[in-house]
Amino acid sequence: MNESPNAAGNKLTRDDCALRDRADPLAGFRGRFMLPDGVIYLDGNSLGALPRVAAERLKAVIEQEWGRDLIRSWNVHGWIELPRRAGDKIARLVGAAPGEVLVADSTSVNLFKLLAAALRLRPGRTVIVSERDNFPTDLYIAQGLIDLLGSRHTLRLIDRPEDAIDAIDGDVAVVSLTHVNYRTGRIFAMKDITAAAHKAGALMLWDLCHSAGALPVALDACDVDLAVGCGYKYLNGGPGAPAFLYVAERLQNEIKPPLAGWMGHAAPFAFDVDYRPAPGIARNLCGTPVILSLAALDAGLDVLLDADMEAVRAKSLALGDLFLELVAQECGDHGFRVVSAPRALRGSQVALGHEHGYAIMQALIERGVIGDFRMPDILRFGLTPLYVRYVDIWDAVATLREVMASGVWDQAKYHKRAAVT
Amino acid sequence: MNESPNAAGNKLTRDDCALRDRADPLAGFRGRFMLPDGVIYLDGNSLGALPRVAAERLKAVIEQEWGRDLIRSWNVHGWIELPRRAGDKIARLVGAAPGEVLVADSTSVNLFKLLAAALRLRPGRTVIVSERDNFPTDLYIAQGLIDLLGSRHTLRLIDRPEDAIDAIDGDVAVVSLTHVNYRTGRIFAMKDITAAAHKAGALMLWDLCHSAGALPVALDACDVDLAVGCGYKYLNGGPGAPAFLYVAERLQNEIKPPLAGWMGHAAPFAFDVDYRPAPGIARNLCGTPVILSLAALDAGLDVLLDADMEAVRAKSLALGDLFLELVAQECGDHGFRVVSAPRALRGSQVALGHEHGYAIMQALIERGVIGDFRMPDILRFGLTPLYVRYVDIWDAVATLREVMASGVWDQAKYHKRAAVT
Repeated sequence: MNESPNAAGNKLTRDDCALRDRADPLAGFRGRFMLPDGVIYLDGNSLGALPRVAAERLKAVIEQEWGRDLIRSWNVHGWIELPRRAGDKIARLVGAAPGEVLVADSTSVNLFKLLAAALRLRPGRTVIVSERDNFPTDLYIAQGLIDLLGSRHTLRLIDRPEDAIDAIDGDVAVVSLTHVNYRTGRIFAMKDITAAAHKAGALMLWDLCHSAGALPVALDACDVDLAVGCGYKYLNGGPGAPAFLYVAERLQNEIKPPLAGWMGHAAPFAFDVDYRPAPGIARNLCGTPVILSLAALDAGLDVLLDADMEAVRAKSLALGDLFLELVAQECGDHGFRVVSAPRALRGSQVALGHEHGYAIMQALIERGVIGDFRMPDILRFGLTPLYVRYVDIWDAVATLREVMASGVWDQAKYHKRAAVT
Repeated sequence: MNESPNAAGNKLTRDDCALRDRADPLAGFRGRFMLPDGVIYLDGNSLGALPRVAAERLKAVIEQEWGRDLIRSWNVHGWIELPRRAGDKIARLVGAAPGEVLVADSTSVNLFKLLAAALRLRPGRTVIVSERDNFPTDLYIAQGLIDLLGSRHTLRLIDRPEDAIDAIDGDVAVVSLTHVNYRTGRIFAMKDITAAAHKAGALMLWDLCHSAGALPVALDACDVDLAVGCGYKYLNGGPGAPAFLYVAERLQNEIKPPLAGWMGHAAPFAFDVDYRPAPGIARNLCGTPVILSLAALDAGLDVLLDADMEAVRAKSLALGDLFLELVAQECGDHGFRVVSAPRALRGSQVALGHEHGYAIMQALIERGVIGDFRMPDILRFGLTPLYVRYVDIWDAVATLREVMASGVWDQAKYHKRAAVT
C-alpha cells in the first residue's frame, strides 16, 4: 500500500506524496485543528474541522462570559461588536474593506435580505437571473420572495455557466449566482459577469459559500454589489455557524432592510417606536446575534487569516491535480467520470460522477474516507489545504481502489439512504 | 445587615427570608446552575444563567460531535432533529402539542415569518394591531414587512393594554402582542384577546419572550394561532440562543413560508429546483440550524422541564411580593414608583420607576446586584425562581437602601451610558 507497483516508472507513489508534504509551506496549520484518528476528512466544504482555538474560545465564552459575567458580557467582552468584528475578518478573506461585511443569521436569511433589497433598488425591473444548478436554497429563497411580493417578478434560470452573460438584459434587477458551484465545483467568472450585470443596469449578488476561505476572492476589485456566504464550510465556524453578508460601501445607505429587526436600528437601546436603519452595514442585522456560535466562528477565522490565500489556492489546486491523477492511475478501469471543471475553473473540491456514487461514498465513509454525495450521481471530495495532506489524497484514492476492486460497495447496506446525505 | 432594626415588630428580617428558602420546594434547582460568587443575579429575563448540563453538553458537542464525528453528526448525533426536538420540549412549557413548536432563527426573524404568513391568510384585511409599548423589534419587523409589501397595510398601535379588544375590527388581519410587557412586566389577557381576534375574523400572534419558562402559558387551550419567543431569557439557552415559533396544528399546512429556505423544503436533500414546503411545522425552518447554540438551549430546557410550572409561578409571585414589601419597608423615602402591574397581572419581574433610575442601576450593578434599566426611567429586576433565593431579594434591597441612603448613585461615573444598557 505504501508504493504503487510501478514506483520505478512514471507512476506516483505514496513516498512522492510524503515528499510534497515535507515541502508544503502550509504544513504547520494541520496541528491547529483537532482531527479524529483514523479518518481522512475530505468534507471540509460541508463542515469544516474544529480549530483548537475555537474550542478554547468556546470554553471561555461558556464558563467566564456566559457563566460568570452574564449580561455584563455584552459590554465587557464585546459581544455586541462580534457581528462586525467577525465580519471585518471575513472581509480580509474576500477582498472587501472593513465595514463591508457582517456576520448574521443564515445564508438563506441573508439571501432574502439582499435579494429583497436589490429588487427595491431596481423598482422598474422584474427579473432575477440565477442558475438552474445553483444551490437549491438560493433558488427557493428567490421563489419565496417573488411569491411574497405578489409574483410580479420572475426567476430566469440559466442551464450552463457560459449562458450567464447572455441572460442579462434590461429587465433584470439582480443577477444571483454562486461563485463556485456546490456540485461540480466550477468557478464562475466573477469579474466578467458582474461587469455584464452593471452594463445592463442590474445589480450583482454572489453567493460565496464554496469560495470564502477556499480561494482568493476580490469583491471590491470586481465591483460586486452584494454577497452572502456561509460560516461552517471553509471558514471552519462549526455546525450551522452564522453566515455573512457583504454590501459594497457605496450602496450601504440605500439598502432598505426587509427584516427590520432591532439590532439593525440606528439606536437599538433607545427603544424607539419607529424603525430607523443604522448607517452602514449594521442595518443588515436583525435579531440578537447567536453569541456561542458566533464566537466559535470568530476564533477560527484567525487561523485562516494567518495563511496566505494565494498559498491556500496553490495547494488546493495541487491536491486536486494529485487526486485526479491518482484516480486515473489507480481506478482508471472503474467507470468514474470527471465532473470537475478544467483546472483554472476548478474550485477547492474534486467531483467524480459514477452511477453507483451513493453506495461507493457510503463504503468509503465506513472505511474512514469522508467525502459526500450530491444528487444525482456525484462523489464530492472537499480539499481544505490547511489540514489535508498529500498523503491523505494517496490514502483516500487507495481506499477508493480497494472499494472498487473488491466490489464491496455493492453490499445492500451501502445503498440505504440516511436522513442527511 | 442581617436583621432589620425592628425585627421584634412586624418588619421582615433576613432570617424570615432564610426561613422561606428552607421551605422552598424549588430550592434544589439552584445547584443545577453555575452562578458567580458575590453576585445577586436579577437579570435572568435578559440573559438566563448557565445550566451546568448545558456546559457539559456543549463540551461533548464541541469535542466529540463537531471535533471527532464531524459531518456524520447530522445523522449519528441527531443534529438534523434538534430544531424539532427542542421545539417539542418548549411545547410542554407553553401548553402546545408535540409538533407545534420549532426552534429556529431569532425572535425577530420568526416574527417576520409568521406576520407575513398571517397577512397572506387574511388577504382582504389591511391592519396589524399591536401595542405602542411592545418590545421595539415587534414593531420594527411589522413596519419593515408593511414597507416591503408596498404599504398596503397599516400598523394600529394601542396605548394601553386595556384598549386591545376595542382596537380589533373587521379590517384586522392579525393582532400581534407580547404576553408579558418587557418594561412593566404586565400580563396581557391571552384568552380574552385571542377570542376577540377570532370573533373579528383576525389571527392572533403572541410573543412569549417574557413568559415562556416564567409562568404557565396555555397556547392550545387559549386557541392561539401563532406565537414566537426567545431562547435566552427564562429558557436559559445562552447568549443569543435561537428562538422558537409556534403554529397551531390546524393552520400548519396553510402557512406559506416567506423565508423559503432549504431546511423547510419537503425533501431538503433531494436538491430539487422548485420549492415545495414540508408538511407541518418544519416548513418554518429556513437555513441550516446553529447547532452549538441550539444544543445549549436543548440541554438547558431539561432543567426547566423538571420543575412544576405552577410552583415556578407561585415562587415568582412570592419573590415579587417580598421585593415590593422590602422596597416599601427599607427604601420608602427614596422616591421609587411601583411600575409593576397588580399582583395577578404581574409577570416574573418587578419594575420600579425613578428619575435617576439609570445611575441607581449602575451603582447596584457595581455592588453585584444585577438588574437592568429600561427607558425612560425603569429599574427592572428579573425573578427567576429556579436560581433566585428569598435571601437574595433581601440582600438586593439592602444594597438598594445603601446606594440610596449614601447618595453614592449620584457620582458621575454611574451616569455614563454604556453601549448596551
